[in-house]
Amino acid sequence: MLVYIAGSGAMGCRFGYQLSKTNHEVILLDNWEEHIEAIRENGLKVTGDVEETVYLPIMKPTEATREADFIILLTKADQLPKMLRDIKPIIGPTTKVLSLLNGLGHATTMRRYVPDESIMVGVTMWLAGLKGPGHAHLEGPGSMSVQHILGDEQSVADIIEMLNEAGLNVTYDNHVVSAIWQKACVNGVMNPTCTILDCTIGELFGTEAGLNLVQGIFKEFIAVAKSEADGIDEEAIWKYVIDASKKASNHYPSMHQDLVQHGRKTEIDYLNGAVVFKGKRAGISTPYCQMITDMIHAKESMLGLR
Amino acid sequence: MLVYIAGSGAMGCRFGYQLSKTNHEVILLDNWEEHIEAIRENGLKVTGDVEETVYLPIMKPTEATREADFIILLTKADQLPKMLRDIKPIIGPTTKVLSLLNGLGHATTMRRYVPDESIMVGVTMWLAGLKGPGHAHLEGPGSMSVQHILGDEQSVADIIEMLNEAGLNVTYDNHVVSAIWQKACVNGVMNPTCTILDCTIGELFGTEAGLNLVQGIFKEFIAVAKSEADGIDEEAIWKYVIDASKKASNHYPSMHQDLVQHGRKTEIDYLNGAVVFKGKRAGISTPYCQMITDMIHAKESMLGLR
Repeated sequence: MLVYIAGSGAMGCRFGYQLSKTNHEVILLDNWEEHIEAIRENGLKVTGDVEETVYLPIMKPTEATREADFIILLTKADQLPKMLRDIKPIIGPTTKVLSLLNGLGHATTMRRYVPDESIMVGVTMWLAGLKGPGHAHLEGPGSMSVQHILGDEQSVADIIEMLNEAGLNVTYDNHVVSAIWQKACVNGVMNPTCTILDCTIGELFGTEAGLNLVQGIFKEFIAVAKSEADGIDEEAIWKYVIDASKKASNHYPSMHQDLVQHGRKTEIDYLNGAVVFKGKRAGISTPYCQMITDMIHAKESMLGLR
Repeated sequence: MLVYIAGSGAMGCRFGYQLSKTNHEVILLDNWEEHIEAIRENGLKVTGDVEETVYLPIMKPTEATREADFIILLTKADQLPKMLRDIKPIIGPTTKVLSLLNGLGHATTMRRYVPDESIMVGVTMWLAGLKGPGHAHLEGPGSMSVQHILGDEQSVADIIEMLNEAGLNVTYDNHVVSAIWQKACVNGVMNPTCTILDCTIGELFGTEAGLNLVQGIFKEFIAVAKSEADGIDEEAIWKYVIDASKKASNHYPSMHQDLVQHGRKTEIDYLNGAVVFKGKRAGISTPYCQMITDMIHAKESMLGLR
């Protein structure tokens, strides 16, 4: 098969590296000039669990011309529409396209460029970091669940086989959409609140008022999730949220790092903002998500990021 | 008449000083030891528009024993219930009690200690500052509107006459309750939002998302105000909010000064928190006020103020 990694940051490099160990052909796509140059000149340097340099083709998305068998989307959320426009020429009638992006609303975006029968969504527990252009750092084992959006497991069996050949520890699971909601729930209740209150996850969950905020946002996520996906188990997701908050108690969530620590635009539109959007479509009121989204947007505006 | 000033901070000293110029008897009540000592030993020092020292009796609220003809309440919002309990012995069947506190919910608190026919509410444009114990600084002219809570203007005519003898520029106005709402609206939309977003009033109103927040809170204030008071003019109050935001564009609101700059507990419970409480009673949903109140409470908890 011909596989493209559309968005070859840390995670994209991990997947590209692992797939390069199979007999399938992998091409990395990215727009970061220095990263492209580094990989072209010196190969992709991999450190951490393995120490190796692999020579993988890399190009800009607009430079790809050969029709793909399989594309893994691993862009930042706000770069997804442009990526899909750029790679339109390589999406053929039988090309399967898998989104591994965090957050909500990506399947909706994909539907504008890819036929339903070609869309897959997944959640992954693999981790990776970029140490610099052309240098990926891989640590720890991981796994991944994927789902065909129309539930047609058979049509993606060969893709799952290939991903497992690459050691990616993939299972087909018809509950990926609810797993995406579960992950989004965790991020949606703690990311923007800790960012706005400038506090750790433990500080947020450690106050009665903070817990009220978490519960207010949580209820809206669940209501909208139930309108979109089957098998949303409110009690189990709440337990998952609480467990996650305990594990990450001393940490600031990633959105805090983005906005407060580095002055970067957040992914709020693909979390609470997406719940507002989906809520409107389903006739579900989401004032907590609306308000916290506006607060993050206001902060972004004040920092000149919007 | 025998007049008590219940809460003799900056504004209480101003009113006490001006009333001391009439033939009526004024007694200051306060709990700040150094302030009491300074006034007992050296009199109340007044600077600013006038330079004068006046000798006024001052005591703790629990030490007052003579039944009052008139009491002006000028405590901090969260000290009001205790003050009313402490001065219960001097509130007789004909004692009129006037609240000049900022914020909402004070008439409800008063009703627990004072019969309805004795309750007055007011809004004042007078200003004053405390330079230290026993030292009030008075600047600029002011005025005041007062209302008898049952609309019985006749029963408070002699009190208004006395206040005007003291030069306090008082008019009787049946719309004081809606003026209190108007003032609360301005504070309720900008105080907690600028505090949480750590921004000036101009920065808040200068972003589209900030304006969304303001409007979301404003709508809830108006809905609850309409359920409580006659003559709430939404359009006029909105214009007043916008005008106030322009005048104070470069300023941080007082709640920001309290919480962010000085680490002091805020008066949120008498603003947005009171709207939540009153909204519940009236069956009006107030998620924006609830959420921003929880955010301020969470911040207060994290700072060890609750």
